[in-house]
Amino acid sequence: MNSRSEPRNADRSTKRYGMTVTYDGTGFAGWQVQPGKSTVQSCLEEAIARITGVSLKIHGSGRTDQGVHARKQVVHFDLDRSFTRHSLLRALNAILPPDVRVLAIRRQKPDFDARRHVRTKEYRYFIWDGPILPPFLRNYRTHSRKRLNVAGMRAAARLLVGRHDFAAFSANPNREMGSTVRSLHALTVTRTGDEVVISAKGEGFLYKMVRSLAGFLMRVGEGAVPPSEARNILESRTRTARVPTAPSNGLFLWNVRY
Amino acid sequence: MNSRSEPRNADRSTKRYGMTVTYDGTGFAGWQVQPGKSTVQSCLEEAIARITGVSLKIHGSGRTDQGVHARKQVVHFDLDRSFTRHSLLRALNAILPPDVRVLAIRRQKPDFDARRHVRTKEYRYFIWDGPILPPFLRNYRTHSRKRLNVAGMRAAARLLVGRHDFAAFSANPNREMGSTVRSLHALTVTRTGDEVVISAKGEGFLYKMVRSLAGFLMRVGEGAVPPSEARNILESRTRTARVPTAPSNGLFLWNVRY
Repeated sequence: MNSRSEPRNADRSTKRYGMTVTYDGTGFAGWQVQPGKSTVQSCLEEAIARITGVSLKIHGSGRTDQGVHARKQVVHFDLDRSFTRHSLLRALNAILPPDVRVLAIRRQKPDFDARRHVRTKEYRYFIWDGPILPPFLRNYRTHSRKRLNVAGMRAAARLLVGRHDFAAFSANPNREMGSTVRSLHALTVTRTGDEVVISAKGEGFLYKMVRSLAGFLMRVGEGAVPPSEARNILESRTRTARVPTAPSNGLFLWNVRY
Repeated sequence: MNSRSEPRNADRSTKRYGMTVTYDGTGFAGWQVQPGKSTVQSCLEEAIARITGVSLKIHGSGRTDQGVHARKQVVHFDLDRSFTRHSLLRALNAILPPDVRVLAIRRQKPDFDARRHVRTKEYRYFIWDGPILPPFLRNYRTHSRKRLNVAGMRAAARLLVGRHDFAAFSANPNREMGSTVRSLHALTVTRTGDEVVISAKGEGFLYKMVRSLAGFLMRVGEGAVPPSEARNILESRTRTARVPTAPSNGLFLWNVRY
């Protein structure tokens, strides 16, 4: 991580930082660095390089896809110089675009890992099922033209909570390294007016798992599938058209706990 | 308004419609049609032309500048054919971009005028004075880096309510046709957490008057100017740097009453 050739001394020993960020995913090609594309990770890495003079890699708690937002994402990175956390935070927010904000920076133990040390993650999926989606919410809510039956969605959600093989709720199970078994700690559905919110909590999620759960629960809410079908789909361990992937714009990485 | 050459008959007599719309002003060069620019008015006129086959002009309750939003804007237009209001509304929302929505369409009396018949208009100006502006609000809130003193803003606002010459609170008083005297029915300031909202109600407003009132009240809230200065500025009838124009992104046309 030491990009300069000077010898290290006590002041220049590597320090690990944890950083909490929030972003609007609308204008980004997702989290992960991709050549020639504007991603949240590259945007943050470039800002850190401009402020510190050090090119480095940041490590997020996980990736988010194109159009997915983060109310709270956590990353770690190493710097070989000391910065007061507050001045680094202010300097980064001064040059970052307004759709990415740094909420907090902390010194961490040298072995802190933003991905591996996650205890629980929460995603929230926001649906608007009123007849007209307000223009101010167009990037943050998925519009359902049918009124959703929340009681049915809750009945299906209850069957999905717990430790299961979620292969049928992953976009590309073959892509997963190792097991497709995950522990879903909670899956709740709440309505406030024309807004339906799905909250999913767990240690970890498969690729596109939350959007697959949301897509399935929306079909249940529309009355297209009975809630009991959740059990059959889980047991099939096979992704089929019965599980659509809900659009990315309704999804928020909501919280990451360590 | 009859763009076709067929003779009129009973079914083809001109009918006046009133339409309520809402829009996110971020991506538009304001309300009014301008050659080569994407404006809310041209966007709506093009959508109506595509659905009805008739090119027409719509007349708004007033203009909004680039970046200004409308929770509720009212327009009128004439059509020489009958449409069921609900099917016209659905057809328009199906082809309009998601940052413009039609909320309602009504038949109106032939002499209804969306601009001249306004009884009261309400604008709201939204300010965020927490240290970090959430990325999801960046287009809908003006960020104040200083914590605003709402009590002081209210004291200044009380001096501005009533019938006054508001020339000092207009961006370009010379541009106004006739009098710069207006009746400000109400000017209130409320805080909820890190959000401060200014509401201005009146029959009519001068060009950039609400953003000028907001810019002045923000200076009072920052402690840069005492509330009592409101009276001196009003009486000067002269626009000076003491009254900055607040940024457009915090402003919403909130309601129009007839």
